[in-house]
Amino acid sequence: MHTDVVNLTTLEDVTAAAERIADIAMRTPLLPGAWADAHRPLWLKPENLQPIGAFKIRGAANAVARIPVSERARGVVAYSSGNHAQAVAYVAKRFGIPAAIVVPENTPAVKIEATRAHGAEVVVVPITDREIVAERLVAERGATLIPPFDHPDVIAGQGTIGLEIVADLPDVEVVLVPVSGGGLASGVATAIKALCPAARVYGVEPALAGDTAESLAAGRLVRWSTQDRARTIADGLRAEPSELTFAHLRKLLDGIVTVTEEEIRAAVATLATRAHLVAEPSGAVTTAAYLHRAADLPRGRTVAIVSGGNLDPTELAAMLST
Amino acid sequence: MHTDVVNLTTLEDVTAAAERIADIAMRTPLLPGAWADAHRPLWLKPENLQPIGAFKIRGAANAVARIPVSERARGVVAYSSGNHAQAVAYVAKRFGIPAAIVVPENTPAVKIEATRAHGAEVVVVPITDREIVAERLVAERGATLIPPFDHPDVIAGQGTIGLEIVADLPDVEVVLVPVSGGGLASGVATAIKALCPAARVYGVEPALAGDTAESLAAGRLVRWSTQDRARTIADGLRAEPSELTFAHLRKLLDGIVTVTEEEIRAAVATLATRAHLVAEPSGAVTTAAYLHRAADLPRGRTVAIVSGGNLDPTELAAMLST
Repeated sequence: MHTDVVNLTTLEDVTAAAERIADIAMRTPLLPGAWADAHRPLWLKPENLQPIGAFKIRGAANAVARIPVSERARGVVAYSSGNHAQAVAYVAKRFGIPAAIVVPENTPAVKIEATRAHGAEVVVVPITDREIVAERLVAERGATLIPPFDHPDVIAGQGTIGLEIVADLPDVEVVLVPVSGGGLASGVATAIKALCPAARVYGVEPALAGDTAESLAAGRLVRWSTQDRARTIADGLRAEPSELTFAHLRKLLDGIVTVTEEEIRAAVATLATRAHLVAEPSGAVTTAAYLHRAADLPRGRTVAIVSGGNLDPTELAAMLST
Repeated sequence: MHTDVVNLTTLEDVTAAAERIADIAMRTPLLPGAWADAHRPLWLKPENLQPIGAFKIRGAANAVARIPVSERARGVVAYSSGNHAQAVAYVAKRFGIPAAIVVPENTPAVKIEATRAHGAEVVVVPITDREIVAERLVAERGATLIPPFDHPDVIAGQGTIGLEIVADLPDVEVVLVPVSGGGLASGVATAIKALCPAARVYGVEPALAGDTAESLAAGRLVRWSTQDRARTIADGLRAEPSELTFAHLRKLLDGIVTVTEEEIRAAVATLATRAHLVAEPSGAVTTAAYLHRAADLPRGRTVAIVSGGNLDPTELAAMLST
């Protein structure tokens, strides 16, 4: 079994990460949901309030901080069209080191602009060439590749969210975390299970990208096609776990629930009108699960991680008007 | 001169308020505006994240906490159709005491529902009868009236925002605060000027409700008609200062700037897309001033108070789509 030989992230890895990222990532508050069900009190962990609008800044900051000082001037490389691109660009700027972000040619101009605004070099390539171009840049420059989830330092960085949840709500009973590549869920579950063994950690996926739910049920990684996973509007949840993250999820998650596209849209609207937060669809799946999957989740003091807030204003407007 | 005999709120009043409200109001973070002008770094103080979506919870909590315990069971009364109504209802529920909120008959049903949802009794009356009905309820029940701004305890409660700003950003240089009845600006300026005498505090008004700007220029309260003040979309900024708040504003504000309706709408969109915050028009005026009145404001580390986030989703959608 592959999963038996994988080294899992520890609480110590996560607490060390928290110290490294303290000057770069925001220490987000827990927001009480005064509008929630009194029998299942809800707090939101608003990672959409991070400087780049998503939790990805935490893992990126920890991974960059771990690069030996002698190697930092050679820079970092990432391939992503989403929040991870912004995160690596922002963190590199804060560290004063160069960043090259490889993006597929269908990336919206606004996202390319946002990445350039952080001072990163943007390399536009055909989508099938992303990895190979990134690897070539790494080889040519002696730069360090910062992967979006499949790395212990990235997992430990995302796990700092779990530390903050426990610090602010020591008697937390249920934590809801979005699952895509699984870096966030792996890190958060590591911290929560170490500090609050009785708390339950549930993953949440769009049903249209429910590969991890199927994989956990099967006890092994079941692969869905890229096209299938791309059907969901939750564009941050279209990745799939790696061996490393799946080993964490199998060991640490108490379960996983899936939500429909309609429920995701409605949760975006609820977060805007009741919590005054702009969440992207991927960031709203946990709220959707809280609102629509109560029967599949334990009762008790619940934290929903709102993982990000980057969406097109016209998209948001459409979800508010339905 | 009236203003010479008014007792002004002190730093001690504000620090005492902070202790009283700690369990009820949220201690909001300062959010760095990574998208802001590097020469005028910006932080947002997101009071829209309070449980009722607005700063009003602070003043209401301090005022209710100051009611002698022997009188609390007789309850509280407020007249308001806006955030103050929600605030008093929410705070009364938290204290376990009855609340009666007098609202004008043109109040949207959704706001009446929200107030009832906090357990308050809602008394619907013709708009001209609001004060008289509120006073009758106070007299009949021996209840305590909680005014929206014209009261030292309310001013001290709102001032706790200033304490938090200085705690999080001790070298703050400019604070932008919305001005309507003036309770928020009076309290915040009291705290900021006492703790950071070199920091400048600027009020912000919609030009269409710019009565306080005119009053400060004239050195005396200049009254605008209710109809004139009602022209702005910033429905939380249609009130006018009292003698008490105007005495604070004259002494403490370094200036006041006004913003156009178009600038307010654009700032609502900017806060949603860049800061991932849903702000109501009244809460967005300070961001509008930061973006469009740079020439009239000092440079330096700037905090913009985002005072609230309660607006109709269709209204928000319209502002996002323009």
